[in-house]
Amino acid sequence: MTHIPFSGNPFDRASNQRQDDVWVAEQLASPAGRYLLLSRLEVLTHHSEAVELAWIDGAVCRGLDCAATPVLLGLRDGMPHFALDVSDIAEALPPLGVEGTAFAEARGLATTLPAEDAGIVAQARALVDWHTRHRYCGACGSPTVPAKAGAARHCEACGAQHFPRTDPVVIMVVWREDRCLLGRRRGRGPGAFSCIAGYVDQAETIEEAVRREVLEEVGLEIDEVVYHASQPWPFPSTLMIGCFAHATSFEAHVDELEIEEARWFTHNEIRAAVAGTNAELTIPGPVAIAHHLIRDWSEGL
Amino acid sequence: MTHIPFSGNPFDRASNQRQDDVWVAEQLASPAGRYLLLSRLEVLTHHSEAVELAWIDGAVCRGLDCAATPVLLGLRDGMPHFALDVSDIAEALPPLGVEGTAFAEARGLATTLPAEDAGIVAQARALVDWHTRHRYCGACGSPTVPAKAGAARHCEACGAQHFPRTDPVVIMVVWREDRCLLGRRRGRGPGAFSCIAGYVDQAETIEEAVRREVLEEVGLEIDEVVYHASQPWPFPSTLMIGCFAHATSFEAHVDELEIEEARWFTHNEIRAAVAGTNAELTIPGPVAIAHHLIRDWSEGL
Repeated sequence: MTHIPFSGNPFDRASNQRQDDVWVAEQLASPAGRYLLLSRLEVLTHHSEAVELAWIDGAVCRGLDCAATPVLLGLRDGMPHFALDVSDIAEALPPLGVEGTAFAEARGLATTLPAEDAGIVAQARALVDWHTRHRYCGACGSPTVPAKAGAARHCEACGAQHFPRTDPVVIMVVWREDRCLLGRRRGRGPGAFSCIAGYVDQAETIEEAVRREVLEEVGLEIDEVVYHASQPWPFPSTLMIGCFAHATSFEAHVDELEIEEARWFTHNEIRAAVAGTNAELTIPGPVAIAHHLIRDWSEGL
Repeated sequence: MTHIPFSGNPFDRASNQRQDDVWVAEQLASPAGRYLLLSRLEVLTHHSEAVELAWIDGAVCRGLDCAATPVLLGLRDGMPHFALDVSDIAEALPPLGVEGTAFAEARGLATTLPAEDAGIVAQARALVDWHTRHRYCGACGSPTVPAKAGAARHCEACGAQHFPRTDPVVIMVVWREDRCLLGRRRGRGPGAFSCIAGYVDQAETIEEAVRREVLEEVGLEIDEVVYHASQPWPFPSTLMIGCFAHATSFEAHVDELEIEEARWFTHNEIRAAVAGTNAELTIPGPVAIAHHLIRDWSEGL
């Protein structure tokens, strides 16, 4: 199996040390600290021969007048690495000590950055987005404050602790004999097919979620479910759980709410689509786990 | 593999129909509606020869003066089944039309109820708890209202949609040669060992989360990770993702923050513990996926 983008984050997340406020304060004050700036969830990059992440020195970042608290991503070579949301001052940033920088969308960076850096982008985007959308306590409505160097938020009014959210999603190649079934979502152009997918619901196993989603969206019964691979997908923060799902018949009926058309494709049709030489079928690019699942199925992996 | 408690929920969740407010109103008014009452997350049960769920008629529930909105669990034999949080009126419930009822804790019900009913308890507890703790909008702090028959909450102030949360957790049997490593958590009695486990973090695959948690808690490097089974665990709402994780050495070092002691056990020691005949080792009971993972490993599954 080839590398799946957004995996491969290289940090030591310092899960234990970050419980210690003194240790966290030392990291924030460290001259070795490096900061990744985000504005409206776009990531600051530096463009020279290739695109790379624009890490900014702690001394510069400590002088920035932004409202957000830095979020500790983790340690690398002993150096603390932070993400900092500068959305409120992005229009008027002072010199940052790096030339040729620009904010870039995370999805495009997934396949242009080195794998480890794309994994860093995924973590930074998911965490900064979570902080932005959880400024208030769901239980009592009071403002919350960051805790554990950004790995939690705390409500001082009611005492509730809130932790970053990751939503499990099942995504599957439905197959039978030498064919697999892909769906064309509402609004997608002719020939643009992908895997069936959906959020895991309460009180479901992975296998039950796969069976429910396939039944709801294309009306097929699934017997065997085999887990294949997973992917962190930071839009906003899901864990994509990729499976192969064996259908008990070929009789698909689309629900028409989410899927407009479902069609069975042969190994050869899929292999041609992976190679980009199938005029009738386009599958998602390698940024998406769907690409890897479909290709691995076509190769008998 | 034997049945894992809390899986096996039998409902058609009506994911598509519940988008339609008219259809939802019809279900709420239906004379065939059945309601499962919860008070402080305990579930109303009926005790005759065996423990069973106490389903209450819609006509009775529509007369109850509680603050909560019924949450649609799903359809069974065409009949809508709801969960209703009556915590605010539980001390003074009127006659419900069923004798011999009592509120019972969900965990104890997992192995005393039939499997499908335990799956219903898991869904009801997870959903009612989520509604209780998400009455306000994380983005703006305003009150939210239930939507989609309880499958969402809507913020009328800022327009944000909020969906029930399910947290993915990895839980694993760490093994090497003929031994597996289990940990004794801080505060557990001597001999009480279980699997290593932890929440999946942002920008991690399942396999990366397994490797990080094992490294953090017992200092071992993991090479191969094999997914085995999953379990919905409604305390409050996690998806337990069970794996076998192969260690590259026997040299464990506990972190002492979460795990007090880690020890390698042979197949035979584990088999005796599963049978309840190992005086030195107690593993979790069948309510927990840990039991099933440990036993399946000991049986070479």
